[in-house]
Amino acid sequence: MDEDKLLALHSKHHGVLEIAPEFQVRNKKELGEAYTPGVAVISKLIERYPELKDKYTLSGKLVALVTDGSAVLGLGNIGPAGGLPVVEGKALLYKDLSGVNAIPLTVDQVSPDEVVSTLKNMQASFAGFHLEDIAAPRCFEIEEKLAKEVDIPVYHDDQEGTAIVVLAGLINAAKVADKKLEDLKVLINGVGASGVATARLLFAAGIHNITFVDIDGPVHADSQNYNHYQTDLVKQSSDQIAYASLDEAIKDRDVFIGLSDADVLTAEQVKMMAEDPIIFALANPRPEIDPQVAYEAGCGIMATGSSQYPNQVNNILAFPGLYKGLLETDLQKVDFGLEKAIAKGIASLVPQPSADRFVPGVFDDGVVDTVAQAVKDYAANK
Amino acid sequence: MDEDKLLALHSKHHGVLEIAPEFQVRNKKELGEAYTPGVAVISKLIERYPELKDKYTLSGKLVALVTDGSAVLGLGNIGPAGGLPVVEGKALLYKDLSGVNAIPLTVDQVSPDEVVSTLKNMQASFAGFHLEDIAAPRCFEIEEKLAKEVDIPVYHDDQEGTAIVVLAGLINAAKVADKKLEDLKVLINGVGASGVATARLLFAAGIHNITFVDIDGPVHADSQNYNHYQTDLVKQSSDQIAYASLDEAIKDRDVFIGLSDADVLTAEQVKMMAEDPIIFALANPRPEIDPQVAYEAGCGIMATGSSQYPNQVNNILAFPGLYKGLLETDLQKVDFGLEKAIAKGIASLVPQPSADRFVPGVFDDGVVDTVAQAVKDYAANK
Repeated sequence: MDEDKLLALHSKHHGVLEIAPEFQVRNKKELGEAYTPGVAVISKLIERYPELKDKYTLSGKLVALVTDGSAVLGLGNIGPAGGLPVVEGKALLYKDLSGVNAIPLTVDQVSPDEVVSTLKNMQASFAGFHLEDIAAPRCFEIEEKLAKEVDIPVYHDDQEGTAIVVLAGLINAAKVADKKLEDLKVLINGVGASGVATARLLFAAGIHNITFVDIDGPVHADSQNYNHYQTDLVKQSSDQIAYASLDEAIKDRDVFIGLSDADVLTAEQVKMMAEDPIIFALANPRPEIDPQVAYEAGCGIMATGSSQYPNQVNNILAFPGLYKGLLETDLQKVDFGLEKAIAKGIASLVPQPSADRFVPGVFDDGVVDTVAQAVKDYAANK
Repeated sequence: MDEDKLLALHSKHHGVLEIAPEFQVRNKKELGEAYTPGVAVISKLIERYPELKDKYTLSGKLVALVTDGSAVLGLGNIGPAGGLPVVEGKALLYKDLSGVNAIPLTVDQVSPDEVVSTLKNMQASFAGFHLEDIAAPRCFEIEEKLAKEVDIPVYHDDQEGTAIVVLAGLINAAKVADKKLEDLKVLINGVGASGVATARLLFAAGIHNITFVDIDGPVHADSQNYNHYQTDLVKQSSDQIAYASLDEAIKDRDVFIGLSDADVLTAEQVKMMAEDPIIFALANPRPEIDPQVAYEAGCGIMATGSSQYPNQVNNILAFPGLYKGLLETDLQKVDFGLEKAIAKGIASLVPQPSADRFVPGVFDDGVVDTVAQAVKDYAANK
């Protein structure tokens, strides 16, 4: 990538978005329609029928895309301003891919309760919240409390977005391996925001045997160096063995899901997995194991987080269509049922999955509309 | 106005604005430029040089246009959602008239301190705050505290906007009456948000003799039924007479500034004013006195808040150019010096003021650019 060109592209207009008018005000008549006295008519109507707010103002179509910059891409905690380019880029993707209007916003790294009250205090402006790049474990507390406090959807892309696309990929990967989804023995390596959310969704999808490993080794139900969001997951699993190491934990596993760091999985460990192992090595830009190394060690069914390899697990498969759909429904929550419905929708985009292709590409035809339709169907049948 | 047409106009696109992309993402290459890995380059740059945030993201050009809906137009407290059409209309005016990007936002009617922390927590997203339709006295506390807490401009249109345009009009009206601005004896009727801010600016512009009347009669330095923002103004005035009524207070006054209600000023009271009286009857849509009645009672120099009569005092003369200018400067505060500079700029748009025309029209050529230039000149000479 040409860095000068990139900087020019992002600085030419101060960022990649603008606020655009739906019509022009050039004279008194148009002023009266766009502003006073016209807006007084709308304001009075909303005072009387509050639900009309979403019909007559931007708030019915505007998603708040909020970061505190505490876990930005692979860069770590670089602060709210550092997180702005990411939320702005995602807001651009929303508009370009699905027509959804999203406004990039930051929130300072105040206490989770204060983040919640800050966003809650502004909820009338928005049709939904999309949280982004907020570090674990604060992201769990913020999302859980915010979702309880507001009556519009709350979605954390690093959690639910990743979980949805992993499940979509796993549905198809299981078919390729000729294994039943529910019977898969899964190891999740990296139990941060995305690892926790992925585990929760896999449990909700009927997978019951999941083992967890993070930087301090396997997570046990009574681990003192892991938080309760992590240890609670262990308690949900049908596998209660207190493994001592990744080497021990990976034996006979059907699936390795890496949401951790480059090069933490070895060829030897792949060889210890069950027959026809499935590996999702999602660390970015360098995966947990080089696909070629994994292949040579006997793993033919592999996804990564990078567009360089086949089967890219990319949240762009989920969020543009998710909010496109949500804005056309009355759904107020992003729950497991909805996430499963979207995952199935994404999986359905590859009707005959093979090792070479079991995750659709982000620019494949129909991705956004399939996801949006899955949301609408879920809402209609709820 | 055709109400059905109006409702169709505002509901066709859910409001009058949209978020628009500065460029299209259609393939992997463009995705890499607009989002990852491109944004990581920008994020790292901002982490290292925080001031570059405003160059490479929307935050350098985006104004937060915020209301709590506690004092919407003449409708009173109709809540945050009720206030949305107003801030959205104003955001449209910003874009259409001056190219400024403003995002309409609401904040719930929590305590002034919580409003301040809510907005402060999101300041990295914005280049400035434009507060709108917040009731007195909470607006004073919110604006004062917020301006202290953040390092971007804070502007309350109902306060500073009105004050600026009133001062602009008064500069020219004094010329028409052949009186010296500083010597004017002024009566302000209606000491809410706009009355307080107007008085503060008139004092800062050298006018020293101002008397205040509100719903409970003349305001005295020790009035128990007025708040300290109001009684503090009285203490600043060279006129310390404790008038008993509007009738008493208006005797020999050069200027009546009404920021109150329809029909509170009588022909008899106009006749009691000094020679060549100046009347700004700014209640909207119906002024404090009908212009024809005032004219017949001897007042030839009159402004109103309505476009139906000559000399409309309209904040649209100020805010679009004000933020257009601010976004091109490093000014972090909207202070009296800036407000005076803008008022002089607006006044200069009518080089030879007459009774028929001493306030420029909102669609006159050069309004926005003159105001923006006044801001930039003030910044350059500060």
